[in-house]
Amino acid sequence: MRISEFQKIIENIYFQKDSKRGLMEAFAWFVEEVGELSRELRSGNNEVNLNNEFADVLAWLSTLASLVDIDLEKAAGKYSQGCPKCHKIPCICSENRITDR
Amino acid sequence: MRISEFQKIIENIYFQKDSKRGLMEAFAWFVEEVGELSRELRSGNNEVNLNNEFADVLAWLSTLASLVDIDLEKAAGKYSQGCPKCHKIPCICSENRITDR
Repeated sequence: MRISEFQKIIENIYFQKDSKRGLMEAFAWFVEEVGELSRELRSGNNEVNLNNEFADVLAWLSTLASLVDIDLEKAAGKYSQGCPKCHKIPCICSENRITDR
Repeated sequence: MRISEFQKIIENIYFQKDSKRGLMEAFAWFVEEVGELSRELRSGNNEVNLNNEFADVLAWLSTLASLVDIDLEKAAGKYSQGCPKCHKIPCICSENRITDR
């Protein structure tokens, strides 16, 4: 499934509700799902639950993108040519990871 | 770009470092990026920054999935047939949104 296809699916299912809810409330829901993902990552080995929580976080991330007119697949292109900073695969940056800040 | 392709790209760029770092430290990085996304969502209208932050959160979510052997595209299939609870498009659940809890 393409990233753009997933974003479109989530819009079709939820955008009507999500747009009424507004961005900040959607962000709160997103963070709630991040918390549930955290719990599953810590408790660790239930594959069904992990799949569910990753799906939910991805769905809410997609919702947030839709609410501010961001194409998640286009955004993901940042990484398509390797590390955005050192341009290598694998990354050879001296820092641990790029944060663009 | 497929979700699985994005996950593979992120693995190719970062997995060597990420696997040494460990799951909980990777989660902390993920949350840091969520914070940066929050800041951009609140300040609101810089499309370049928004694209960057959505990409970074998606990349770290992908890293977390890779660290616990979750296929993010397979997980995303949860939503492929509509709302996982009411099975409708658009969702007609009386609650605002499904959290599986």
